[in-house]
Amino acid sequence: MTLKRRPQGEPKQEDFELVENELSEPGPGEVLVRSLLLSVDPYQRGRMSEARSYAKALELGETIISQTVGEVLESNHPRFTPGDVVVGQLGWTEYAVVPAHQLRRVPDGVPPAAALHVLGTTGLTAYFGLLDVGRPKPGDTVVVSGAAGAVGQLVGQIAKLMSCRTVGIAGGPEKAKDLADLYRYDVGIDYKGQDVDAALKEACPDGVDVYFDNVGGQITDLVLLRLALHARVVICGQISQYNNQQPELGPRNLGLLIVYRARMEGFLIPDYAHRFEEALTRLGRWLAEGKLTHREHVTEGIENAPRAFIGMLRGENRGKTLVRVT
Amino acid sequence: MTLKRRPQGEPKQEDFELVENELSEPGPGEVLVRSLLLSVDPYQRGRMSEARSYAKALELGETIISQTVGEVLESNHPRFTPGDVVVGQLGWTEYAVVPAHQLRRVPDGVPPAAALHVLGTTGLTAYFGLLDVGRPKPGDTVVVSGAAGAVGQLVGQIAKLMSCRTVGIAGGPEKAKDLADLYRYDVGIDYKGQDVDAALKEACPDGVDVYFDNVGGQITDLVLLRLALHARVVICGQISQYNNQQPELGPRNLGLLIVYRARMEGFLIPDYAHRFEEALTRLGRWLAEGKLTHREHVTEGIENAPRAFIGMLRGENRGKTLVRVT
Repeated sequence: MTLKRRPQGEPKQEDFELVENELSEPGPGEVLVRSLLLSVDPYQRGRMSEARSYAKALELGETIISQTVGEVLESNHPRFTPGDVVVGQLGWTEYAVVPAHQLRRVPDGVPPAAALHVLGTTGLTAYFGLLDVGRPKPGDTVVVSGAAGAVGQLVGQIAKLMSCRTVGIAGGPEKAKDLADLYRYDVGIDYKGQDVDAALKEACPDGVDVYFDNVGGQITDLVLLRLALHARVVICGQISQYNNQQPELGPRNLGLLIVYRARMEGFLIPDYAHRFEEALTRLGRWLAEGKLTHREHVTEGIENAPRAFIGMLRGENRGKTLVRVT
Repeated sequence: MTLKRRPQGEPKQEDFELVENELSEPGPGEVLVRSLLLSVDPYQRGRMSEARSYAKALELGETIISQTVGEVLESNHPRFTPGDVVVGQLGWTEYAVVPAHQLRRVPDGVPPAAALHVLGTTGLTAYFGLLDVGRPKPGDTVVVSGAAGAVGQLVGQIAKLMSCRTVGIAGGPEKAKDLADLYRYDVGIDYKGQDVDAALKEACPDGVDVYFDNVGGQITDLVLLRLALHARVVICGQISQYNNQQPELGPRNLGLLIVYRARMEGFLIPDYAHRFEEALTRLGRWLAEGKLTHREHVTEGIENAPRAFIGMLRGENRGKTLVRVT
């Protein structure tokens, strides 16, 4: 699946094109992989624009980048044999020929979806964002926006494992139900159906010690008004803003950082590569012990990847968005 | 000088009232002080409003709070004798009777103005804000807004002492001249006379490692677009916003913190009380060695304190604003 034209505002189906290419034979040290699951993530929107971002933009005609789980069909490298399940940055593609060093084996017993979620980039994002940037202490009140999304559902549960009180914000009654039932949030707020300001006031009588922000915009404006002294604000995503063609205007509120002596920080996962091992070991243990409930929102067929992506940016997904290649 | 009514927007002379009170005799452990110099600072604007801030609002009729340097006239405490020069939180007043523990002696050889500036709260703010929050490394590019103001003039010089490149932003040709001539900024930008975006681009080809923000608003919008990876943004003040009755709108730009993996942090000096000794020792040595040039903007007469304050909020001061009580 390639980028046909740069989306203006909300992406449309016609911005994407499924292209058939002749598949080359794997050369020395290369591996032929058939995709099983494609990851669909908000950051991909940034790569489709030419605006300054942390990675270069996709060229028109290029395959949409993503993490992908696949099965090895042919291997010219001793580390892989046909039938192995692997994960790598293959993009939204059905087949790929890639150098072996770009692939990691998915360990036996790990479901393919987990390799893209709890034990993949999503889990690493929740882990390092919350623990390293947010630095929660036992008893802290941790508020998460996009709390039923891929990263948010894990952040809340990891915060509970750190003995924090957790408050999740999500849109719609189903997601709000998931916050309490699946992700063990102490309080779930449905921003579409509730007065967020009043709900936050009630849920956070001593203020917000850690705010893990996936969405930005007006929800963030309201949370910032309720920070506790020395609060930490983790800027993980700003999904409410990704389709804007011009920056949206909002109230200038940096003065609140002085009022609350607060810290606000952005982060990216590649900076933590030297600690992936540590994080995956811990996440894997929690998962095995049943301490991390996770939910995936799976769409069938690579031809529907754009639709899944557009829906995710609208908040229509319920959990981590994946596409199964059939 | 008392608060007569709460300013709406920009403060006016009529918001203040000079009131004569009967002076009580100093009781046991108390000291009678005659003011010499009053400090005039942006944070005082916040105390005049009822809006949520980091300290409680002044009551109507209350003396405007400030740091003040004075001379001891009578003392009922062994630590002070008449003629001593002292500093304390006396407010905008000509005479005050205060408990001795609220006063610190200004050491011999330290000019009264220095006790309110380089070796006072201003110096401490520059010191901890830059070194502890901003954490500059040798070779870093440090950008300062309000760079010719009380705190900004010191931040630039301390950054030079830390082997950084310094870029100062101030309003008007006189202040821009001071940036280079007095405060040793490598580049001075006059935001009233120059294209700030173009000037920043030229001055910071490798991006901004530390941004020390005293002003907020549009200047901050422009600097944030030029952050370097892992930049630190020190939110010290937002003087451009203090007279607003409603939050001004500006572009939502928290996403930039992700792009640059940047940290943005507010701070207040009382949190560093346990380290004042360290800071004052270092600042005192730099001052004695001639490494910290400082400029004060002195207005004569307590009756003119409101005018000095209003002018400072407009940026009419050239250096640290003080009022000499005559």
